[in-house]
Amino acid sequence: MKILLAIDSFKGSATSKELNEAVAQGIKKLAPETEIFSYPVADGGEGTLAAFWENGQGQLQQMDGYDLFGKAITVNFLLQKKQTVAVLEVAETSGIQFLKADSPIQQASSYSLGQLIKKISLTFPTVKEFIIGLGGSGINDAGSGMMQALGVSFKDASGKEIALGTSELKNIVTIDDSQLLAEIKEKKFTLLSDVKNPLLGEQGATYIFGPQKGLKNLAQVDQSLAHYADVLTKKYQRDYRELAGAGAAGGVGFSLLYFAETVYQAGGEYILTAIGMREVLPEVDLVITGEGKMDRQSAFGKLPSIVAGYAKENQKKVIALVGDSSQVTSENYQVGIDLILNLSRGPIALAEAMAQTKNLASQRGEDIVRIMAL
Amino acid sequence: MKILLAIDSFKGSATSKELNEAVAQGIKKLAPETEIFSYPVADGGEGTLAAFWENGQGQLQQMDGYDLFGKAITVNFLLQKKQTVAVLEVAETSGIQFLKADSPIQQASSYSLGQLIKKISLTFPTVKEFIIGLGGSGINDAGSGMMQALGVSFKDASGKEIALGTSELKNIVTIDDSQLLAEIKEKKFTLLSDVKNPLLGEQGATYIFGPQKGLKNLAQVDQSLAHYADVLTKKYQRDYRELAGAGAAGGVGFSLLYFAETVYQAGGEYILTAIGMREVLPEVDLVITGEGKMDRQSAFGKLPSIVAGYAKENQKKVIALVGDSSQVTSENYQVGIDLILNLSRGPIALAEAMAQTKNLASQRGEDIVRIMAL
Repeated sequence: MKILLAIDSFKGSATSKELNEAVAQGIKKLAPETEIFSYPVADGGEGTLAAFWENGQGQLQQMDGYDLFGKAITVNFLLQKKQTVAVLEVAETSGIQFLKADSPIQQASSYSLGQLIKKISLTFPTVKEFIIGLGGSGINDAGSGMMQALGVSFKDASGKEIALGTSELKNIVTIDDSQLLAEIKEKKFTLLSDVKNPLLGEQGATYIFGPQKGLKNLAQVDQSLAHYADVLTKKYQRDYRELAGAGAAGGVGFSLLYFAETVYQAGGEYILTAIGMREVLPEVDLVITGEGKMDRQSAFGKLPSIVAGYAKENQKKVIALVGDSSQVTSENYQVGIDLILNLSRGPIALAEAMAQTKNLASQRGEDIVRIMAL
Repeated sequence: MKILLAIDSFKGSATSKELNEAVAQGIKKLAPETEIFSYPVADGGEGTLAAFWENGQGQLQQMDGYDLFGKAITVNFLLQKKQTVAVLEVAETSGIQFLKADSPIQQASSYSLGQLIKKISLTFPTVKEFIIGLGGSGINDAGSGMMQALGVSFKDASGKEIALGTSELKNIVTIDDSQLLAEIKEKKFTLLSDVKNPLLGEQGATYIFGPQKGLKNLAQVDQSLAHYADVLTKKYQRDYRELAGAGAAGGVGFSLLYFAETVYQAGGEYILTAIGMREVLPEVDLVITGEGKMDRQSAFGKLPSIVAGYAKENQKKVIALVGDSSQVTSENYQVGIDLILNLSRGPIALAEAMAQTKNLASQRGEDIVRIMAL
């Protein structure tokens, strides 16, 4: 039997690769002859770099860089296709993991992402495309900091450059792009996201994703971003605030739309295609996917639903392994999943279940062999 | 598809019948055409009366009776085969459910069971056989109280009848069976048990089952029962203390062995055969069994292992649904179970899982349809 594994990471407990490996181990224990095709996957969020790298799509690179408050860190990225493509994760420089409870969240900035893009552009002039995974960010500055790092100037009424972060966006009066790094205009930016939110309003970056980053005064912040959108729209006579995805990663891609060729792509579809998973599907007998918690929302574009959709194009059976299936609805099956199994094997506390994830996943691997033998 | 359901009760959360019905409901929801053969089952413990009754084996009877401390209660039993067989559960008169934390456990007695047997014998003279489920008792008097109720006298050195319970057994000097109810000698007693423990010692009634009944001073109690065995052995020149099962239900059957035709039967095998389940097995496509918590011990004679054994004699696939499968070992599969699924669908507290048992069982019924369709 040939089994394809493409389980999304369980946030906080196991990576996609770890889950695939654990399930494969369980399968091999009872059915050593099974042929396993393991694809670590991601949807543009956590694990995006890993999904490309672990599937042999690029060379891992490291650079000195900065986090969202300017603290020095080492940043990972990939170079692909003879160094013509660089793959970045917003979370590497601007991730929510850098935020502490008492962090000055309104000062969190995409400036360091801009620095990284600049440094890569200058160090690897062959790079023509940046693929950027937008998930897991801790910023909400609509990409203004990134543009400042790349040479764009935003000044207030007194002619002073605005401070980094969210709070002074409302004071921008003039935009000067004359010093924008020339190379940027030649690059293509492919932004991978699993969300379709616009920049502003009730469904926008601030209201939907601000609270989990610790943002307060949401109305004020949203208005600040609206002013930033207003001045960009006025200057460039284009308005991207309603674009699906413009609200991803604190709106970081919204700025890029004005200054370079920028395309949003659905992260899951893009990555599953790029890593070659879809080409292998016709060959396999069973597809195993999964995610940490599956609920109704999972049926609408989450990774397992995308994997299942591709599997069903090939008439393949799909089993989803999930940490928590208690909120699953019939819609979760309608995307093409045939069976959903949770990992826990009895009453257990969440923390213990998370600590046991890999072991439990391996045991469900054994169960899948038993199920297929029924 | 034809599916046979024979799930043991989940103690404290759902009866065998309730579990079968919940799983059947889930199966029917997704596959209404499925033919369900539902057998409520028991192994001689909790649910023994129900297993016979719900499978149409007998008429339910009620009598005024007493609990293990002599408190008036209503007692259930069955009459079978034109009132020639009475089916009793020790737990009806002498169950652990009657014990409170501060109960004088050493005074708990099988006397009321003897009263019930006497009353049935006199009320229904056609009864030739008593089938007694031994599980779930709260007594530990080796059946001495039962024999006193049936007319046997146990006196101490001063010629005084010993008190009911465990503590005065050690004082017995003389046994007088001259007043034993004559009818008892003509009856057959079939004792259904799922344990093989002897009466005495480390594997005996007191040490193994005493603690869960709240017994203290186990060595002293065990010695008291040993003295009781000694005087019976001396008087009747037969010794049953090592008989497998003599330690079941606080040794209640041990006394009967001296005064009537008494046979121990493995409860699970006996009931599964009696209710006709084995005859239907050749016709079905799948067998579903289960129990509350499955562990290594379950492989050694617990109900699901017996069901699985009979299923495998008919080359049938077996799925076990359990509340907790976290302690399952490879031995649990070796008895003939092909797949073990726990009910909970993610991290959950034990109390909540128990409260949700029927709902969760129904959802696993749906999963079984999905599994069989894979």
